[in-house]
Amino acid sequence: MKRLYFQGTNGAFSEVAGHKFFKPSIKTIGRRTFKEVFDCVAGDPESYGIIPIENSLSGSIHKNYDLLLQYRVWIVGEITLRIKFDLLSLPGTKFTSIREVWSHPVVFNQCEKFFTRYPELQPIPVYDSAGAARILKSEKNKNVAVIAGPQVAGLYNLECIKSGIEDNAENFTRFFIISAHKKFLSGKNAKTSIVFGVRNVPGILFKCLSIFALRNIDLTKLESRPIIGKPWEYLFYIDFKGSVEDEVCQRAVENFDEVVSFLKVLGSYETKGVV
Amino acid sequence: MKRLYFQGTNGAFSEVAGHKFFKPSIKTIGRRTFKEVFDCVAGDPESYGIIPIENSLSGSIHKNYDLLLQYRVWIVGEITLRIKFDLLSLPGTKFTSIREVWSHPVVFNQCEKFFTRYPELQPIPVYDSAGAARILKSEKNKNVAVIAGPQVAGLYNLECIKSGIEDNAENFTRFFIISAHKKFLSGKNAKTSIVFGVRNVPGILFKCLSIFALRNIDLTKLESRPIIGKPWEYLFYIDFKGSVEDEVCQRAVENFDEVVSFLKVLGSYETKGVV
Repeated sequence: MKRLYFQGTNGAFSEVAGHKFFKPSIKTIGRRTFKEVFDCVAGDPESYGIIPIENSLSGSIHKNYDLLLQYRVWIVGEITLRIKFDLLSLPGTKFTSIREVWSHPVVFNQCEKFFTRYPELQPIPVYDSAGAARILKSEKNKNVAVIAGPQVAGLYNLECIKSGIEDNAENFTRFFIISAHKKFLSGKNAKTSIVFGVRNVPGILFKCLSIFALRNIDLTKLESRPIIGKPWEYLFYIDFKGSVEDEVCQRAVENFDEVVSFLKVLGSYETKGVV
Repeated sequence: MKRLYFQGTNGAFSEVAGHKFFKPSIKTIGRRTFKEVFDCVAGDPESYGIIPIENSLSGSIHKNYDLLLQYRVWIVGEITLRIKFDLLSLPGTKFTSIREVWSHPVVFNQCEKFFTRYPELQPIPVYDSAGAARILKSEKNKNVAVIAGPQVAGLYNLECIKSGIEDNAENFTRFFIISAHKKFLSGKNAKTSIVFGVRNVPGILFKCLSIFALRNIDLTKLESRPIIGKPWEYLFYIDFKGSVEDEVCQRAVENFDEVVSFLKVLGSYETKGVV
């Protein structure tokens, strides 16, 4: 069976997104850090990795863009997952008996309204939410609940005691599927991601975008990132519809190479949209 | 004395950046959430707030952009702070006696190499790093160290036992100073931030950028953000050099209003660069 590396413990959102991308099935393997995921994928061309690349509330994950530039791996797929948080406890726990709530502090930040409503509940930070669920399962403490994704309940025999307690329902994370096997999808349904560097002289970006505009290529993401320590140099992330295997986009990319300081085509890939 | 609201406990990076912006002095007041900072600032036009808006590793903080759109507050200043982490302990603690290291999990993510080098140290997640230092000061435990910014040591009588243990020295956070008092800086040294929404028809962004290009206005940030739930609608964040109080930029913004679905000028402000 194919192997898919992800960062985190069983039950992590990355793992859920990976199963949805590769259904009916793939063997998922958790790693401690994103770098370890890239190491595993780079070392085994038959395997895949899944990495979060941006969240609708907290923005692009530059660390993973940096790793995409460092390693000889390419994007071969994309999937976007709705992030939803449930309050989970041992079966039979009464809400009124709960004293402590365990989760990752970033999760607490996204559930502020819940804690404002129930100030008697004490949030206790832990390393990862799925890990907290595993501990709760073994400790059998009915004064504790965890906040985690809905997928975690079944995995650790917990029950959902309150559902969808996140502040903002418009919480989505976009993931890339990566592989050391360079294979670009062709055709109209493909999406392409590129990263390039430019020295910021006024109008340079306008030049770059004219390359897409004159060919009616549709951009779906555009982001500049200052290269700190190198004043006036910028990295740009651009996603567009189409494939570099097809002539129009191929020409755009060639044209591009004439005006930028460096360019990497991260992949032309299949996108599964929002799940 | 002027009042400056920030999110966090005494010793937070936001507070440090605020003191550097307003030196010689300002009274800083910590609040639990970013929303509370905006509430305080919106309710008191004589006060200021400081909010992180983007980090060089983890990207733009969309939540604060959303709050900038929701509240009647404006950006009146900008400062960028180098983020550095030290290992702090009680005076006289030997490194070899340390068993536990307390900090925010996001800090652990940024100090992975340190924990790989010293696998015998157990990272214990806490709510905020400055808070952990305060607890260590009162508990007087010589088997514990905390990871926090250098400013935290003096505040809680701790000593730096290892300095600069972050993985990536190119770690910077950019902060905005906000105020309910709408006052735009004019002149060449000003920087302007705008947010606008567009329906994504091919080439719309090219049109938008032509408005800047034909006036030789220099963009320093450009980022698209899909509005999830509204397919094909995007928010754009743009920063450029110059002030909307001056004619060229004012005309650009008027011109802009003709092509976009909505536009907010967040401020024309003083920037203090990297400190």
